[in-house]
Amino acid sequence: MTLQYPTSLGTSDAEHIFLLGQDVAGDLMGEVGFGELAFWLITRRRPTPGEARLFEAVLIGLADHGFTPTAIAARLTYLSAPDAVQGALAAGLLGGGSRFLGVTEDTGRYLADVLADAPDLPKDDAAWDELARAAVARSKAAGKFVPGLGHPVHKERDPRTPRLIEIAHEEQLYGPHLALFEAIGRVHPDVLGKTLPLNGAGVSGAALADLGLPQELLRAAVLLARCAGLIGHIAEEITRPVANSIYLTVDRNARYVPPEVGA
Amino acid sequence: MTLQYPTSLGTSDAEHIFLLGQDVAGDLMGEVGFGELAFWLITRRRPTPGEARLFEAVLIGLADHGFTPTAIAARLTYLSAPDAVQGALAAGLLGGGSRFLGVTEDTGRYLADVLADAPDLPKDDAAWDELARAAVARSKAAGKFVPGLGHPVHKERDPRTPRLIEIAHEEQLYGPHLALFEAIGRVHPDVLGKTLPLNGAGVSGAALADLGLPQELLRAAVLLARCAGLIGHIAEEITRPVANSIYLTVDRNARYVPPEVGA
Amino acid sequence: MTLQYPTSLGTSDAEHIFLLGQDVAGDLMGEVGFGELAFWLITRRRPTPGEARLFEAVLIGLADHGFTPTAIAARLTYLSAPDAVQGALAAGLLGGGSRFLGVTEDTGRYLADVLADAPDLPKDDAAWDELARAAVARSKAAGKFVPGLGHPVHKERDPRTPRLIEIAHEEQLYGPHLALFEAIGRVHPDVLGKTLPLNGAGVSGAALADLGLPQELLRAAVLLARCAGLIGHIAEEITRPVANSIYLTVDRNARYVPPEVGA
Amino acid sequence: MTLQYPTSLGTSDAEHIFLLGQDVAGDLMGEVGFGELAFWLITRRRPTPGEARLFEAVLIGLADHGFTPTAIAARLTYLSAPDAVQGALAAGLLGGGSRFLGVTEDTGRYLADVLADAPDLPKDDAAWDELARAAVARSKAAGKFVPGLGHPVHKERDPRTPRLIEIAHEEQLYGPHLALFEAIGRVHPDVLGKTLPLNGAGVSGAALADLGLPQELLRAAVLLARCAGLIGHIAEEITRPVANSIYLTVDRNARYVPPEVGA
Repeated sequence: MTLQYPTSLGTSDAEHIFLLGQDVAGDLMGEVGFGELAFWLITRRRPTPGEARLFEAVLIGLADHGFTPTAIAARLTYLSAPDAVQGALAAGLLGGGSRFLGVTEDTGRYLADVLADAPDLPKDDAAWDELARAAVARSKAAGKFVPGLGHPVHKERDPRTPRLIEIAHEEQLYGPHLALFEAIGRVHPDVLGKTLPLNGAGVSGAALADLGLPQELLRAAVLLARCAGLIGHIAEEITRPVANSIYLTVDRNARYVPPEVGA
Repeated sequence: MTLQYPTSLGTSDAEHIFLLGQDVAGDLMGEVGFGELAFWLITRRRPTPGEARLFEAVLIGLADHGFTPTAIAARLTYLSAPDAVQGALAAGLLGGGSRFLGVTEDTGRYLADVLADAPDLPKDDAAWDELARAAVARSKAAGKFVPGLGHPVHKERDPRTPRLIEIAHEEQLYGPHLALFEAIGRVHPDVLGKTLPLNGAGVSGAALADLGLPQELLRAAVLLARCAGLIGHIAEEITRPVANSIYLTVDRNARYVPPEVGA
Repeated sequence: MTLQYPTSLGTSDAEHIFLLGQDVAGDLMGEVGFGELAFWLITRRRPTPGEARLFEAVLIGLADHGFTPTAIAARLTYLSAPDAVQGALAAGLLGGGSRFLGVTEDTGRYLADVLADAPDLPKDDAAWDELARAAVARSKAAGKFVPGLGHPVHKERDPRTPRLIEIAHEEQLYGPHLALFEAIGRVHPDVLGKTLPLNGAGVSGAALADLGLPQELLRAAVLLARCAGLIGHIAEEITRPVANSIYLTVDRNARYVPPEVGA
Repeated sequence: MTLQYPTSLGTSDAEHIFLLGQDVAGDLMGEVGFGELAFWLITRRRPTPGEARLFEAVLIGLADHGFTPTAIAARLTYLSAPDAVQGALAAGLLGGGSRFLGVTEDTGRYLADVLADAPDLPKDDAAWDELARAAVARSKAAGKFVPGLGHPVHKERDPRTPRLIEIAHEEQLYGPHLALFEAIGRVHPDVLGKTLPLNGAGVSGAALADLGLPQELLRAAVLLARCAGLIGHIAEEITRPVANSIYLTVDRNARYVPPEVGA
């Protein structure tokens, strides 16, 4: 049996460490930003400065939203096992599933699917609106939500959305996913009968898709962003703890109810 | 009961999202790098450009070392549960404990302890050497390893070490932890009777300590770096998988041995 | 705001600890088996002795299959972070997703769906065969696999399958899910053109469904079983370690290949 | 290179599945309880019926204590990622560290250390008291807590403690760890100047040590117990959810405070 495990990631010899074929000490450290390297690791290609700026803007917009379920879970785990900070971070990331962190991935996939089905790319806003209108109508007819619409707090406008679109324009990285997402923002009130904001998680999915990230890894990019935010929560939990107070609030307000079989 | 959960992290109102008191869309997105934000989240203060550069250089040096146990664990978990990428990432981070990723934290703590016990900071190399010599001798007498010394592959020189020291000098961030670490590099052969390289994980701990990161969070910084590397492994596992081959290699070479009670 | 968090699980006062409304010290400890309690926690009702026996037989059949990806991941994580055994266990469980541990859940759902669509329960083997034949044909026409069929090692017969069916008969717990699963075993060669064994994960899903476990928790039962097996792997890793050897085998057979963009 | 990975756990051939050298289908399923198998996996030997009863009584006493931080973390993770139940379970187990679940392990180690240092085993209660008194006095002089003493709710008596001791006597498994623990219960008021109850986590550590479990795996036994309890919480979260309410309670009571550098 000849074992061989191919990789483009970290390799080394006595004198060198390589990553993605680059000399880590000679070419990367001090020369490349951390967000830039993360993009490179995800896509296998070095981003341009503009791509790195847009990518990092997405990460920053998704890094933290305060006391989310994932942040609370990380803090409670830190409270229980402060000697294993990796466990607190992992517990927080494990909430990165379909419901709270999934919108970015869902939106990216949705937009890509609509674009894949389109015969050719729209040439002007009217054509984008038509494509968007048909997509939203199909979703409505199928009883499905259009991902990326609506926000519990930012009911009129999510401030990250125009900012990310602005940066994409500045860096000439405004592509078909963002164009379609904006068109959905324009046409959905007509189709759905209500006006919802384009949310920050959704616009992030559109921007990451325009940056060429593979669909399977949109969630991974969100998890990286969230990793920084969760470390912020752990840092804060060390100096200004709230987890014990959360725990006691829940525990002291527990109320026994008899078990309901089959319920 | 008045519930109040204080935080300096994410808060929001209908029009704004704040993080660390900054307007996320107005002040951070597009203006701040992701590594810069991570430093800010860990230390509660915005780094200077030089601090951000040194911090990101540390992260990049620690991001990936190829097929480490943590990378293999992440890939095997992705193989088993590809629908939950957060689980694969979490599984990889859970190896971030004492043995493989702990050197950075251990070195930072060791250096800080020696400095805390010193009556005052050495003024020249000779005085640094004296302080280092006493510390290494104490460790040896106690039968303890000096953290940050030695590397299984880079037996003579870890290429990250001189590079990180160079960047620290360039940014005028070379402080007492790095000075003590270099002094240990100079004097330990005399005390220990063998010459070991100052490794990259150790110099990272020294640099992070000089940057003012709290000791409890040195491991968290390593985990953030590793998070990017693990996402790189998951990305590669999707397009050029090895986990199934690793699994089969192990499974096919399993050999039954009778259980040994108490062994 | 009146906070109230209802639960039927653990509550206590100065003198007592209750669980599911039972006095833990007075009624459960020493009186109830651990598998019995687990069934009770999942379904909210105490199993009969026969139900507990069948349930525990399922758990035992699923507890361990040697060097699976999840067991290897747990051992590698223990190698990296031996001070946090909870992390090694968690890393192993995180592989409990769709691919390796999902068959039990998939089979339970499949059988339940077929039964839900049937106008009434078949009265004899011929009627069961008819129902099964239609279901397998529908799956085939849709290009989908029938879950619970086939095994990489037990190509002719999975020894757990007849044993679990035997126990179900002994305890008079043989119900419609097992009946349908056996019928699929009889008729699928005709429809699919090849003969596959009914595997142990699949028959476990059928038995758990006949025991009344909710579909959403079939995977949880498998995870509980696997938890015991993973602890066995960690126990063995302590006394007869293999993780470092696995790691070195992979690391030493790494081969650098240039990154392929978009691949 | 000859690869060989020894194991006493799961192996199989086309006709059989073995675990610990037993035929899983022929010898274990339907014949062995799940707690019995877990003991066997941890210790490599089959427990007697009495040992299995005491072991399962320990597991049942530790399975759940209601809304602990780990249970809340599991529920919040399920809320965020309901499609990956393995993540919710893992998040809950990750809190199984030093603070909340560590008492069992700490007590087992403490008692074993005291016994290891004793010249020979005490012959009567007076001699046990003398040994215990010296140990408690040493801990007090060193400014250390004696593990297993005190409980926030059961301030006078933890109901699990006498019950577990009773079962140990019934099964003739009352050994030196339990004897020393009871002696600590008798003598500590004199030494410490206050009377604390022997808690259930502590007595569990004593009983597991008397059962011969290795110290490194006491925490693993607690994690197995907790695994069942966490599945109970996930089951309850599905039918009678509280996690969203907990999240909203925390989020709505967040109060922004400016970051304190270095705090």
